[in-house]
Amino acid sequence: MELQRKDVGIVAMDIYFPPTCVLQESMEDYDGVSKGKYTIGLGQTCMAFCTELEDVISMSLTVVTSLLEKYQIDPREIGRLEVGSETVIDKSKSIKTWLMQIFEKCGNSDIEGVDSTNACYGGTAALLNCVNWVESSSWDGRYGLVVCTDSAVYAEGPARPTGGAAAIAMLIGPNAPIVFEGKFRGSHMAHVYDFYKPNLASEYPVVDGKLSQTCYLMAVDFCYRRYCAKYEKFEGKQFSLSDAEYIVFHSPYNKLVQKSFARLFFNDFLQNPSSIEKEAREKLEPFSTLTGDESYQNRDLEKISQQVAKQLYDAKVQPSTLVPKEVGNMYTASLYAAFASVLHNKHKILGGQRIVMFSYGSGLTSTMFSFKLNDGQHPFSLSNIASVMNISEKLNGRHVFPPEKFVETLKLMEHRYGAKDFVTAKDTSLLSPGTFYLTEVDSMYRRYYARKDADNPNTEDGIGFANHSLVNGHK
Amino acid sequence: MELQRKDVGIVAMDIYFPPTCVLQESMEDYDGVSKGKYTIGLGQTCMAFCTELEDVISMSLTVVTSLLEKYQIDPREIGRLEVGSETVIDKSKSIKTWLMQIFEKCGNSDIEGVDSTNACYGGTAALLNCVNWVESSSWDGRYGLVVCTDSAVYAEGPARPTGGAAAIAMLIGPNAPIVFEGKFRGSHMAHVYDFYKPNLASEYPVVDGKLSQTCYLMAVDFCYRRYCAKYEKFEGKQFSLSDAEYIVFHSPYNKLVQKSFARLFFNDFLQNPSSIEKEAREKLEPFSTLTGDESYQNRDLEKISQQVAKQLYDAKVQPSTLVPKEVGNMYTASLYAAFASVLHNKHKILGGQRIVMFSYGSGLTSTMFSFKLNDGQHPFSLSNIASVMNISEKLNGRHVFPPEKFVETLKLMEHRYGAKDFVTAKDTSLLSPGTFYLTEVDSMYRRYYARKDADNPNTEDGIGFANHSLVNGHK
Repeated sequence: MELQRKDVGIVAMDIYFPPTCVLQESMEDYDGVSKGKYTIGLGQTCMAFCTELEDVISMSLTVVTSLLEKYQIDPREIGRLEVGSETVIDKSKSIKTWLMQIFEKCGNSDIEGVDSTNACYGGTAALLNCVNWVESSSWDGRYGLVVCTDSAVYAEGPARPTGGAAAIAMLIGPNAPIVFEGKFRGSHMAHVYDFYKPNLASEYPVVDGKLSQTCYLMAVDFCYRRYCAKYEKFEGKQFSLSDAEYIVFHSPYNKLVQKSFARLFFNDFLQNPSSIEKEAREKLEPFSTLTGDESYQNRDLEKISQQVAKQLYDAKVQPSTLVPKEVGNMYTASLYAAFASVLHNKHKILGGQRIVMFSYGSGLTSTMFSFKLNDGQHPFSLSNIASVMNISEKLNGRHVFPPEKFVETLKLMEHRYGAKDFVTAKDTSLLSPGTFYLTEVDSMYRRYYARKDADNPNTEDGIGFANHSLVNGHK
Repeated sequence: MELQRKDVGIVAMDIYFPPTCVLQESMEDYDGVSKGKYTIGLGQTCMAFCTELEDVISMSLTVVTSLLEKYQIDPREIGRLEVGSETVIDKSKSIKTWLMQIFEKCGNSDIEGVDSTNACYGGTAALLNCVNWVESSSWDGRYGLVVCTDSAVYAEGPARPTGGAAAIAMLIGPNAPIVFEGKFRGSHMAHVYDFYKPNLASEYPVVDGKLSQTCYLMAVDFCYRRYCAKYEKFEGKQFSLSDAEYIVFHSPYNKLVQKSFARLFFNDFLQNPSSIEKEAREKLEPFSTLTGDESYQNRDLEKISQQVAKQLYDAKVQPSTLVPKEVGNMYTASLYAAFASVLHNKHKILGGQRIVMFSYGSGLTSTMFSFKLNDGQHPFSLSNIASVMNISEKLNGRHVFPPEKFVETLKLMEHRYGAKDFVTAKDTSLLSPGTFYLTEVDSMYRRYYARKDADNPNTEDGIGFANHSLVNGHK
């Protein structure tokens, strides 16, 4: 029996972010910075954060369970499970092994894959690995599952408003509505210290904001040129932005996404001038002789390229910015939360379209790749995926905390990070039914989780997986 | 142009371990334990360790550079680079990005892959990912490179003698002498706290030795049964140990490998009695009605199964135990160092043979898989791989330290782990020419490395990559 490997890609998706958030506007007041510094300067609206009840393990338990239940996937149909994360709770035991609780319960322990690590890029590494698995001789016909889960928190200072938290789950298989274009891909990887986490006892990173921004923009350029070269090699014609309906970026903060799209526009101008309108061409002309290094430092180019690219940005990028602006930087989940925003906003008109994705992880690793979309069939249709993700309701149902409460939570978590022997607050009223949460870390650092209002909450290990979802039988 | 994807597997290998080691016999004296506790009880001879000059980054720089030079591989021929490690130096920046220094120097930044994490299993995850990449539609015709690098150190106590340190590099591509048998594979993954690293500020793990041993043996059973089922499905006949020339285990300490092979033998007895000799069958008969749980606790079964499996162990396992016994537990590198030992000992008679591999990482993740070998062609022949690895000379050229010196080093490293703002000793006399070593960690935690007696040691970043190896041109 030959397995069907056509149109491998994302078959289904779900997203989870904490119901607790803080407004960037109120953070500006609280921090005493100039009005608009976070909302316009960074381009951010709101920031989600984990209280003591949630962490990257609980969020991934929540989103994986939700995906399996909502698409009625039998846990035994999963043959590979990979996690991308840069939020380290244990330096050896992978987050994937905590998720195995969901599957062991159903008698499925035969699931390949571990955690992939490099800053915000780990989720993309997991996705590429999972797609390759389905295309390999080792594939056994079951689904892959990719999980991106992160909690981004920063020490007091200019980077603090660029936090966020979320988990995304993506089901991988053939005949997908979101088909991976394997041949078109450009990567750029290098050794830099732009953002890293060498202080092992602290949850906070060491960040060189200016260097990280330049590294990001250089990576955009490198990856785009390589992506274009691959496209030209296989398609026999030049690639320009007009060949993609949407461009989705990893989004540490929205302003960087605006700058990055302007770089792509400037690249098209340099490589493919005929794809650019005359007026824009004339405005960019004076910058055409800049060296690469000069171009990253040139403020006039930055300003003018954003200006002339604005209209195209509104069409091709803006639909992806909803969740990243509202939730903040979700690290590995950020790019896929941006992609989820496009599905949310445009699922009705995506059939036949190409979406280009840019993934960046400091340190650094980066890849540009693309999806070709089709409407798909229920339950794996684009419209059902949008409906399952239910982004509007999740955003609107959140509880806005005052900055004082956010800062207080971070202070508590500074003591909790890497700690043992504590129990968490009993009040789970802010969590939605079905959400997993941390109850205890014992004297041996073992972590215990429970599920709010689960169908069978009294199971041995506190993981109340809802058995009613097991409707499909063993494949 | 269709790319050739036949016989994907390991094309070339190299191994590195520190030249500094301590004898288990002298550790027995130093610790005041009964004679034979480490040498017979654990089955270990010697243990390598990193001095302040080496770490998992320097070891991987050393082994990757050595592999590229010795097989004359142009760094631009590498299209994917993945690292497996559980020794965390930075929680966000991958070890892979440090290795990019080697490739950026040659103008190659287009290299996919990051780090894979789950205890000792990360190297296997990286290997499976890399093989899948070559078999996927995304493969661009270049080589993959898998690196396993770890330094295993334990707090004072019973686990301390089970340390070790090494790095392995494996070149992945088609037409390999060591062909991956993708279809035959059995995995077992579960959520357990047998060995983990939740104390983020410490390099030492939290270990439940007894639980970890039981988890390992249960994983051996699960994986073997699944491997056998896959074999039977595709080959139409039962699998037994006689279908593999060698069985190679992840080796925390040799005694566990002996027990594990006895479990496989017991499995064959239960599933495939005709494959076992009459005398052994009769001795195992009394244990045939034990439940699984009982069988892991039964000391008589443990003793008798090892006894009746002894002859087969000597033939099928003993050749893999050289490096693990001499170097110790190398975590992600352990399984591949055991495999390297088989190549070293038996490279002349491996053509046409199958080697079964068992990978285990606490937490837990485990997979059994197999290679089919052919003699290969120079420089990618089994005999040249054995010659490049040069294991005898590397083992014999080591410097044996007294236990006091080993303990003193560990005490120093307890302060160095996660620290900043220090320089290392200037004396590199114990290192072989070509070895990379740590020179400094600055006030921003940035790490600086140099290469001993490199051909061009005065390069900007201290990485003296030998340009004379770049003979093949850009593919």
